[in-house]
Amino acid sequence: MAVYTQLSAETLSELIAQYDVGGLVSAKGIAEGISNSNWLIETTRARYILTMYERRFELADLPFFLGLMDHLSAKGCPVPRTIHDRAGANFRMLDGKAVALIEFLPGVSVDNPTTAQARSVGEALAQNHAAVADFAQNRANDLGRDSWKRAVENLSDEALAQIDPSLSALLHEELDYLASKWDDRLPSGVVHCDLFPDNVLMLDAKVSGLIDFYFAATDLFAYDLAVTHAAWSFSADGESYRAPVGQALAEGYGAVRQLSDDEREAMPWLLRGACLRFIISRVEDWISTPPGALVARKDPMDFVRRLQFYRGNAASLFE
Amino acid sequence: MAVYTQLSAETLSELIAQYDVGGLVSAKGIAEGISNSNWLIETTRARYILTMYERRFELADLPFFLGLMDHLSAKGCPVPRTIHDRAGANFRMLDGKAVALIEFLPGVSVDNPTTAQARSVGEALAQNHAAVADFAQNRANDLGRDSWKRAVENLSDEALAQIDPSLSALLHEELDYLASKWDDRLPSGVVHCDLFPDNVLMLDAKVSGLIDFYFAATDLFAYDLAVTHAAWSFSADGESYRAPVGQALAEGYGAVRQLSDDEREAMPWLLRGACLRFIISRVEDWISTPPGALVARKDPMDFVRRLQFYRGNAASLFE
Repeated sequence: MAVYTQLSAETLSELIAQYDVGGLVSAKGIAEGISNSNWLIETTRARYILTMYERRFELADLPFFLGLMDHLSAKGCPVPRTIHDRAGANFRMLDGKAVALIEFLPGVSVDNPTTAQARSVGEALAQNHAAVADFAQNRANDLGRDSWKRAVENLSDEALAQIDPSLSALLHEELDYLASKWDDRLPSGVVHCDLFPDNVLMLDAKVSGLIDFYFAATDLFAYDLAVTHAAWSFSADGESYRAPVGQALAEGYGAVRQLSDDEREAMPWLLRGACLRFIISRVEDWISTPPGALVARKDPMDFVRRLQFYRGNAASLFE
Repeated sequence: MAVYTQLSAETLSELIAQYDVGGLVSAKGIAEGISNSNWLIETTRARYILTMYERRFELADLPFFLGLMDHLSAKGCPVPRTIHDRAGANFRMLDGKAVALIEFLPGVSVDNPTTAQARSVGEALAQNHAAVADFAQNRANDLGRDSWKRAVENLSDEALAQIDPSLSALLHEELDYLASKWDDRLPSGVVHCDLFPDNVLMLDAKVSGLIDFYFAATDLFAYDLAVTHAAWSFSADGESYRAPVGQALAEGYGAVRQLSDDEREAMPWLLRGACLRFIISRVEDWISTPPGALVARKDPMDFVRRLQFYRGNAASLFE
């Protein structure tokens, strides 16, 4: 959550003039994005989000991410479209960094979703999954299932033990379990992969926007549903499963896109895989972020607790 | 520039419901304010800035600051008014901290003002000075002239020498000079005291908003003009005096409120005093902020260079 780059009003005005969006009226750096700088821009015509991509390695994938947003938006999904400049480009370079002008969508991110909100998220997710059927691009999921074994091998037992004495054994158990279950033949497509509540805008009980597609990749639809279920259906620390919220999310999804029998049977291991993915990345962040740093570390144990719940209960959740 | 506190959408909705402003539509934490957290709030009715005051000591002065904004706004100055809650209060407590809902004003802060913009700032400043004639409250300027001697005495010669070998002697020379000149009988009132470009919003060549009144205090009108002149009329590093900009600012001011002969004669020492005030606070920040800290330190020498310019040239600037 930061604005990494300062852009003067003069620079912003020149940039905005490259688009057919009217003149600059207001610009506020906003505290969103992990590796991006973002501004809420108002012109004489409308409001927009201006995103500057601070990490160079994102540049190669940017046409994929922005093209996906435009595709989903055109299909009627609640996804912001990108604004193209006068030359037709959906991003430009500014001071050596890529910037994109993106539609502003109303709505707020909720911390404690209601069942109605969870149902709406399930519907929106399924709507996305249906809408990518004719999206032509692909992107390998570099944080997906194929990455987990090597990632766990790269974590030292000592560092894991400092977080929790049982963590190393748990991670290896789960890798073995997933190796025995994983089936790449389930229906797949380009999916969000990170649809946590802070990436969803709500107006009252309805989804008004899905944002932050910068982890989007080609993966199993049911895996994306599992990620979303794990992200929405628990208290933040993972201690309490909120059964009505989890159920509403599953029902909302099913109302728009029905899971096949194979997918339904796969949900128990997909839910456990989704937890493993976030345990791994949070452990990596935990180890690389000093305790006193300004960036808040997210506790990997929040997702260990989710995993423990799914180990005991996942069989009945998507029956 | 930070958002220090996280407020959930649920908390924001409850807060907004205490005001007659419609329902919450959007809320973005914005990267403004040094000691405050700020959100750009949109409701079904309008947009607002929500400010949370993170420093406890500001609370006692908050009725003064907010009352001043309402007074200036009611007089037609381009100053945001505060929104009063259903009970009539212009601030509320939330989690032990004061929060105020404030009118959103359009405009952007410029880095390199044009002469037309500088003229407009001069006019707006003078308009403020005229408008406080019947503002009943007062607040001692704790960063004003009476504080400078003790502040300089508290700076170690060693720390000053590390910034610049000549700095200690310069500060003492200036204190002696000001002691021989300062005259508290010049016209005074409640003034902004910190009208740098980042505290002014512009729409094209016109001031659309004066913001951040949290240094406002009772002081000499001409001292406030001197602060503004020093803040606007130089390149950021203080190397280059921008004569047309400084002149336009002075002309804009004079078109709305004419300086008396005494004030005009006082401008040379007031300009040097204004520089001394910012050298002192920047030296204090420089010493207390480690070089690697995330907060950018502002170089005290930027204002030493302004001071040197005024020592040589101030006599002719407000003739």
